Amino acid sequence: MTPPDVLAYIQENEERFISELFEYARIPGISAQSEHAADMRASAEWLARRCLAAGLEAEIRETTGNPVVLARTPRQDPARPTFLVYGHYDVQPADPLELWTSPPFEPRRDGRNVYARGISDNKGQHLAHINAVEAWLKCGHDLPCNLIFLIEGEEEVGSKALYGFLETHADELACKALVVSDTEIPGMAHPALCYSLRGMAPLEIRLDGPNRDLHSGLFGGAVDNPAMVLCQMLGSLRDASGRVTVPGFYDDVVELSAYERGQMARVPFDEAEFRASLGVGALFGEAGFTPDEQRAARPTLEINGLTSGYQGEGGKTIVPSRASAKLTMRLVPDQDPAKILALVKNHLQAICPPTVRITLTGGQGGAPYIVDPAGPLAQACMRAARTGFGHDCVLVRGGGSIPIIAAFKRHLDADTYMLGLALPDDNAHSPDEKFSLDAYMAGMKMSAALWPELTSAAGS
Amino acid sequence: MTPPDVLAYIQENEERFISELFEYARIPGISAQSEHAADMRASAEWLARRCLAAGLEAEIRETTGNPVVLARTPRQDPARPTFLVYGHYDVQPADPLELWTSPPFEPRRDGRNVYARGISDNKGQHLAHINAVEAWLKCGHDLPCNLIFLIEGEEEVGSKALYGFLETHADELACKALVVSDTEIPGMAHPALCYSLRGMAPLEIRLDGPNRDLHSGLFGGAVDNPAMVLCQMLGSLRDASGRVTVPGFYDDVVELSAYERGQMARVPFDEAEFRASLGVGALFGEAGFTPDEQRAARPTLEINGLTSGYQGEGGKTIVPSRASAKLTMRLVPDQDPAKILALVKNHLQAICPPTVRITLTGGQGGAPYIVDPAGPLAQACMRAARTGFGHDCVLVRGGGSIPIIAAFKRHLDADTYMLGLALPDDNAHSPDEKFSLDAYMAGMKMSAALWPELTSAAGS
Repeated sequence: MTPPDVLAYIQENEERFISELFEYARIPGISAQSEHAADMRASAEWLARRCLAAGLEAEIRETTGNPVVLARTPRQDPARPTFLVYGHYDVQPADPLELWTSPPFEPRRDGRNVYARGISDNKGQHLAHINAVEAWLKCGHDLPCNLIFLIEGEEEVGSKALYGFLETHADELACKALVVSDTEIPGMAHPALCYSLRGMAPLEIRLDGPNRDLHSGLFGGAVDNPAMVLCQMLGSLRDASGRVTVPGFYDDVVELSAYERGQMARVPFDEAEFRASLGVGALFGEAGFTPDEQRAARPTLEINGLTSGYQGEGGKTIVPSRASAKLTMRLVPDQDPAKILALVKNHLQAICPPTVRITLTGGQGGAPYIVDPAGPLAQACMRAARTGFGHDCVLVRGGGSIPIIAAFKRHLDADTYMLGLALPDDNAHSPDEKFSLDAYMAGMKMSAALWPELTSAAGS
Repeated sequence: MTPPDVLAYIQENEERFISELFEYARIPGISAQSEHAADMRASAEWLARRCLAAGLEAEIRETTGNPVVLARTPRQDPARPTFLVYGHYDVQPADPLELWTSPPFEPRRDGRNVYARGISDNKGQHLAHINAVEAWLKCGHDLPCNLIFLIEGEEEVGSKALYGFLETHADELACKALVVSDTEIPGMAHPALCYSLRGMAPLEIRLDGPNRDLHSGLFGGAVDNPAMVLCQMLGSLRDASGRVTVPGFYDDVVELSAYERGQMARVPFDEAEFRASLGVGALFGEAGFTPDEQRAARPTLEINGLTSGYQGEGGKTIVPSRASAKLTMRLVPDQDPAKILALVKNHLQAICPPTVRITLTGGQGGAPYIVDPAGPLAQACMRAARTGFGHDCVLVRGGGSIPIIAAFKRHLDADTYMLGLALPDDNAHSPDEKFSLDAYMAGMKMSAALWPELTSAAGS
């Protein structure tokens, strides 16, 4: 149980927590832009000071890239379970600046919304956890578990340094489970535990036809057109029911359980509103699944880009020399990225005609992720979310990928529970990124409730 | 019959004719580049002087664009038939300059080849006709017909001014038939009369899906992918036998006669060599036709360019907001560009799913062209080519389009006979453009023989 004074402390310190969030959001820690190197360091230093002020032991640890901030609750007790909160202090670039209503690094408050780059993704979300621990500690309570905060500075550019850090520091990061607040919830009335992510396998296909762009009048008709071949090959990869036609593609897909489908159905979904928000006249997805299932619990093969021939103004009457496309397959448990990549490559090779030369380049994939949504830790998370938000927690799957979570599993042998505080209109990665102060406050209360819930579930 | 002294005169003056060709080729008359405006004027002036020196009456006529050079044989006799020789003094841009063995406007002779931009396309070809007329006139012979030379300066940029000039000056350009030397022949042993050209109808298709590029993890699977829809739509436009699947596409195609197929079969064709020259492992074209028939006598639908989503280095995991393609249909007699465009547009509208918005933009098309290859003027051309080259003339169709020829037909009510002097390796529009001096000389002799042949055929 969360001591009542902890929740009261959170409420009483709301304005200070908001002003600290603003301080943090003023640091333009854009990891993608090398001119912000000093801001990366400044972000880590601000965060470490904030952790110290909250009563944590905190240090800045060097890596091969931007430093990580590592903080721990004091007096760690090996007899208690340890949980790790992961987050990132780096933010996305802010351009195009002209699309922001106010400057991205001058936080602006408008009612219960606050606007700034990185305020939702991810500063406000991990700060909520730090604030909650402060409440526990400043109220003089011992947490029932040990906590580690691991906040990195390269999430928006691939977490390269953190992968290395995990490999060499697995011992000191050992934990029973991880909590990450970096996902979306459907709304304030629907806090959500995200228990699964899709994996990914990228593939580039290039078809080479004639050794130069040919005059379509002098040659067209007697030589194959790589752009047409590409269209025919790619077009054949999806059937009318929205299923991927590559043989074996669905072999390892674990079907959704009735429990999961029931839980996903609790998330409100307004198709007309969804269509309108995307600006499309009709949706399209694999027959037999709801849109939320299609985009989180079913695998896909997407064309991310097409390139061939002349793309400028006007026309150019050529048979293009080559055509290429970038593809990504989104994968669900238990699909294996390497196996899927091999299946798709083999299939494309098999259907490629002798009139073109095919080159297939697979990229670094990521495995899908899932934890048992009915397991004790998942259920503990859901109870804490209910406490924090005052509404029943729903179970959702994430359609995207967070590759570092597979690395946590690999190096720390621990599962990750995703308890996001971002709302669907937070504009992560877009102009006018915002964060809800209601979500911030609910997140602190959820976090305050989380540690006793997880501790007792871990003991069960 | 061509007087023997005319042919002797041509031979005797070979070196002067070559040196005049070099003079002409030194003028960088690139119509596409406005900094060459003075060179356009200089080209026209050089040409007018050359015509005067040849014994023609010549003038530079202003147009809405670059001037045209208009020259006539002296003492035109309304009782005789009039023929018009069309050509163009403007040349293609020369870049990329670094791919030229020698500077493009410093003509270089290597054995019987001469290298310079525009020397084959089209300076050498119309100069051969002027030289031939000089030979007739300087030998003191009256030509049996009236000749008009119409040499324009905007062929490489669409002949816009000439279309206007034709409209307003049709009376003074009235002729029985036109001769154009601006096409290719298979080789020196195979002079050719080109009696048909393909027409063209350009079309751009754009599919708009979601109102922005979407995260393929968060949305992929529940919303259609415009790039995939484009591939499926375009891929369906051609069947496995290489036929265009648009209903009605072939309705107006006049099938090749046995005479035509027999004539086309006389043109030597080495499939292995053709494949190797294109760098493809296998050819592909409409079943039931030879490659030469496929690329000149059969209609096609080609994708000239494809654009969608992310095309840079690496990957970007998006469902692209839109996808587009540039298409051209090459048409054969009696296909009508407007009708074909409407058929293709209607078909694409009909097969477009409701998940995307389609925008179709048709461009300016051109009608296919044909003259009766068995008619008296065609046969006269073939006899003249035999005289000039010393080999039987073959009949060929051109796969490309020369839209001005349809305008000649429209405004002058006269057919055009294409007696090209370009060889397949002349590199028109490419670096190291060249012209064969053997073709130059054979062209003069052909031209010298052409006027009596055409005159007597016109009377028949």
